[in-house]
Amino acid sequence: MTPEQFREYGHQLIDMIADYRNDLSDFPVMSTVSPGSIKQQLPTQPPVNGEDFQAVFQDMKQIIMPGLSHWQHPGFFGYFPSNSELSSVLGDYLSTGLGVLGLSWQSSPAMTEVEEVATDWMRQMVGLSEGWQGVIQDTASTSTLVALISAREKASQYALVKGGLQAQRAPLMIYVSAHAHSSVDKAALLAGFGKDNIRYIETDADFSMIPSALAKTIADDIAAGLHPCAVVATTGTTTTTAVDPLSAIGDIAHEYGIWFHVDSAMAGSAMILPECRWMWDGIEKADSLVLNAHKWLGATFDLSLYYVKDPEHLIRVMSTNPSYLQSNVDSEVKNLRDWGIPLGRRFRALKLWCLIRDQGVTGLQKRLRRDMANAQWFAKTVSSTPDWEVLAPVHLQTVCIRFTPNNLPTNQLDDFTKAWADALNHSGLAYVTPATLNGQWMVRISIGAIHTEEEHVKALWANILQISQQVLQQQFL
Amino acid sequence: MTPEQFREYGHQLIDMIADYRNDLSDFPVMSTVSPGSIKQQLPTQPPVNGEDFQAVFQDMKQIIMPGLSHWQHPGFFGYFPSNSELSSVLGDYLSTGLGVLGLSWQSSPAMTEVEEVATDWMRQMVGLSEGWQGVIQDTASTSTLVALISAREKASQYALVKGGLQAQRAPLMIYVSAHAHSSVDKAALLAGFGKDNIRYIETDADFSMIPSALAKTIADDIAAGLHPCAVVATTGTTTTTAVDPLSAIGDIAHEYGIWFHVDSAMAGSAMILPECRWMWDGIEKADSLVLNAHKWLGATFDLSLYYVKDPEHLIRVMSTNPSYLQSNVDSEVKNLRDWGIPLGRRFRALKLWCLIRDQGVTGLQKRLRRDMANAQWFAKTVSSTPDWEVLAPVHLQTVCIRFTPNNLPTNQLDDFTKAWADALNHSGLAYVTPATLNGQWMVRISIGAIHTEEEHVKALWANILQISQQVLQQQFL
Repeated sequence: MTPEQFREYGHQLIDMIADYRNDLSDFPVMSTVSPGSIKQQLPTQPPVNGEDFQAVFQDMKQIIMPGLSHWQHPGFFGYFPSNSELSSVLGDYLSTGLGVLGLSWQSSPAMTEVEEVATDWMRQMVGLSEGWQGVIQDTASTSTLVALISAREKASQYALVKGGLQAQRAPLMIYVSAHAHSSVDKAALLAGFGKDNIRYIETDADFSMIPSALAKTIADDIAAGLHPCAVVATTGTTTTTAVDPLSAIGDIAHEYGIWFHVDSAMAGSAMILPECRWMWDGIEKADSLVLNAHKWLGATFDLSLYYVKDPEHLIRVMSTNPSYLQSNVDSEVKNLRDWGIPLGRRFRALKLWCLIRDQGVTGLQKRLRRDMANAQWFAKTVSSTPDWEVLAPVHLQTVCIRFTPNNLPTNQLDDFTKAWADALNHSGLAYVTPATLNGQWMVRISIGAIHTEEEHVKALWANILQISQQVLQQQFL
Repeated sequence: MTPEQFREYGHQLIDMIADYRNDLSDFPVMSTVSPGSIKQQLPTQPPVNGEDFQAVFQDMKQIIMPGLSHWQHPGFFGYFPSNSELSSVLGDYLSTGLGVLGLSWQSSPAMTEVEEVATDWMRQMVGLSEGWQGVIQDTASTSTLVALISAREKASQYALVKGGLQAQRAPLMIYVSAHAHSSVDKAALLAGFGKDNIRYIETDADFSMIPSALAKTIADDIAAGLHPCAVVATTGTTTTTAVDPLSAIGDIAHEYGIWFHVDSAMAGSAMILPECRWMWDGIEKADSLVLNAHKWLGATFDLSLYYVKDPEHLIRVMSTNPSYLQSNVDSEVKNLRDWGIPLGRRFRALKLWCLIRDQGVTGLQKRLRRDMANAQWFAKTVSSTPDWEVLAPVHLQTVCIRFTPNNLPTNQLDDFTKAWADALNHSGLAYVTPATLNGQWMVRISIGAIHTEEEHVKALWANILQISQQVLQQQFL
C-alpha cells in the first residue's frame, strides 16, 4: 500500500472509529453470535491477488462488528475495565505508523528514553519512592512471571547459569492468597515451581490474606526442610477487589528473606488518588510490583507496568548479549530487552505518555473518583433493597451482589444467579461477570468504563431488577 | 478526548504518518543522538492539567523523531527487516481503535475466529499440513519459551501439577546449535533448565547443525543418566541465515522421543515461495515452530506465529480456568488465553488479515523474490571485488561480508571492520549490523525493507566501498 492510499483509507478509518465511539451505546454490549458463525462468513483460503481495502472495511462492518463485545460501551460492567482512551489510541497509532522497533537503546533511542520518562511519571503519580524503576510489559501475567522467575533465581543464587531449577534440593515455595489472580498460579507453574509447592494462605472475612497464617505456614515449611522463595500479595483482587495487608506481609517477607511481589494490576491505577493510598501502606517493602495502565486508567491495551527496586538483579536474570545486539554505548544506556522476556519492543510508551499529557493528572483523578462514587451509590442501593446483598467491601469500583428471593428453593440459587446474569448479558443492555465467592455464584458489577456515567449505573440497576424478576417468575417459580 | 477531537487529531496523524512514509529517504537511517539527550528535553514531572494534543505532535516532530532509527527506511540493512506494511498498520489501527479485548472467546468472538482464519491462511501459504494449528504470540522469544515449557512438561509427565521442575531427578537436557538465536538460550534459562543442561551441537562449514553430532551427544547424555528433553533447530539463523537439516534432526528427535521445535522466525516468511521450501524439508516431523510475520513478511510488529501439532498438550500446560473466566460455550470454542502466557489479548489478527488481503499471496511473493534477487546481486558483486569476501551461503536476503585489505595489519582487522560499519551507520546513509562469526567481526547486510529497491542496494555498495576506504586511509594506515 502506498502512502497516498494509506492517506485515503486512513482518513476513512479515523472517521469509522470516531463514529464507532460516538455511537457505541447503540450496540448491544455483548456479542451473541454463536460459535463458528464469524469463521463461516470468511474465505477459508488466502486471496491470490490483493483486494481493494474497501472490501476490508465492508467486512469489518458487516461480519466483524456483530462478533464483538464492546468493551468501551457505557454498559460494560464485565471483568475489569479495559479502557482505551482516545488520546492513548493516538499514541499507539503514532507508534505503529512509525514502525520503529526496540532491540537495543541504539535501535531507537527515543523509544527507551520516553519509556523511562513515562514510567517515572507514573511512579510519581502513584506515590512510589525514587527507589523504583519501571518497564512496560504486555500484561500482568507476564509481569508476575518475570517476578517469580526473578525470585527463583535470587533464592537459588542464580541457578540459571548452573544446573537450573532442576538442581534445587530443598523445594522453593511460593505463598499466595486463595484470592490471588489465576495468573499468579499460572506464573508459578510456568516458572517450574510445581503446584505442590504453592501455598494458599487463609483469608479473613474481607477476603484479605491473614499475615499470621502466612507467618505460620512459612515457619512450618522451614521446619519441614522446605525453602520459602516468594510471597505474592494483591491490592484489589479480581473477584472482590480485596486488599492484602502489605505492611505486615512485607515484614514477614523481610524476616525470612523472601521475595515480595505485589499484584496491583487493578488497584494500582487508584493510587493516583491520595485517599486510596492506604491500600498500598507498606508497598515500599516490596521487591516488585505490577500495575496495569491498560485497565481502569485508560492506556489502550496492552500496557502493564512492572516496577522493581533492584534492576541489576532483573538484568542479571533476563540479559542476553550476542554480538549482533551490542553497541558502543551499552554501558551508558538502558537496554530494555534485558528487563523482560521478549527481545523486540513496540514503542508502547507513547500510548501512556499521550494519555497522561492529554488528561493531566487531575483529569484522570476526576474520572476515577466519579467511578468510585458511582460504585458507592450502587452498593448502597443494592444493600437497601430487600433480598439483595453486597457480598464484599467496596474499596474501588467493583460491587459483588446476589439476589436471594424468599420464594426460591435454596438449591436453585446458583442456577438462578447465573441465569439472570446471562439474561442481562443477552439483553444487550449490559455486560456483567458472574463468579464464585466462597463456593457460591454471585455477580460482579465492575464500574469504570470511560463513558459510564451515573445515569448508566442507574439504568443498570433498573435493568437488573426487571430482568432478574422476569427470570425468577418465568424459569424458577 | 472526545470522538470529535479524535477525528480532528486523527486526520492530522494520518497525514503525518503518510508524509513520514513518503519522505523516509530524507532522514538519516540511524539516529545519532547521544545517550540521555531525549530525556533531557522532556519534563521530568507529569502535567497536572491536560495539554492540547498539538503539543504532543510538536514534541513528536522536534524531540522524538531525531531520536529514532528508521526501520522502514530504504537504507535500513540492520538486524533483520521489521517491515510495517501500511495495510497492516491500518489493521492495527482498527484493532486499537475498537478497544476490544480477548480474555475468552465470548469476550469478543470475532477476535478469536479471525485469528483462527488468519493463522490458517498463513499455514496454507507456507505449505504446512492441516495437522498444524496456529496462535499469535508477541515475539519469537515468547514462542520459544512456550515451546520449551511445553517440552519440559511433556518430558516430566506434567510435573507442573505436582512438584514442578524442582522434583526432577535426571536433569532434562536441551539441544541447540551454537548458531541458535540468543532467545533460545534465554528461553531455556527462564524455563529453569539451567545453562549446564544446554548442549551446543557442532555445526558444519555452512553453520548448520550436524545431525550425527546431535545423535552422539544425546546418546552420551543418556548413557550418563541424563534425560534428553528437546532439540531446537533453526531455519535461517540470525548471524548468517544458516539452515539446520530438519529431516535428519527430526528423525533423531523421534528416535529418542524428544520435543522438536523449529525456530523459523526469519526464514518462515520465505516459505511462501515454493523455491525456498527445501529449507523446511522435514518440518512435518516437528512438534512446534515459530514464524515471525512481523519481520520480512510485513505485518507490523508484534506478530509472531506459533504453530503446534497437538493443541491439547499446549492447553494442558497453559490453561487456567477461574470462575470469572468461564462461559457457557467453552466446550465449543477456542479460548486463546490457554495457548500462551498472557491472559489478555489484542486483536492482532487484524494486522495479518489486512496485510494478506491487501497484498495477496502473489504480491507478497513478488516482494520477497525481489529482495532475494538483490541479495544475490550484492553477494556476487562483493565476491568479485578484490579483498572482499562473502562469508556464508546466501540462502535468503542476508549477506555476511568482510573487507580484508592487503595492507592492513591482521591484528587490526576486527577494529577496522567495526570502524567502517560504524562510520557507515553514522553517515546516515545506511544502517548495518556488525556481528561475530567464528570469533571474528564481520558485517551483516540484511536486505528486505519494503522500500529497498535494486537502486538502494547499489547505492549501499558504493557507500560501503567509499566509506571503508576512507576509514582505512584515515584511521588504519
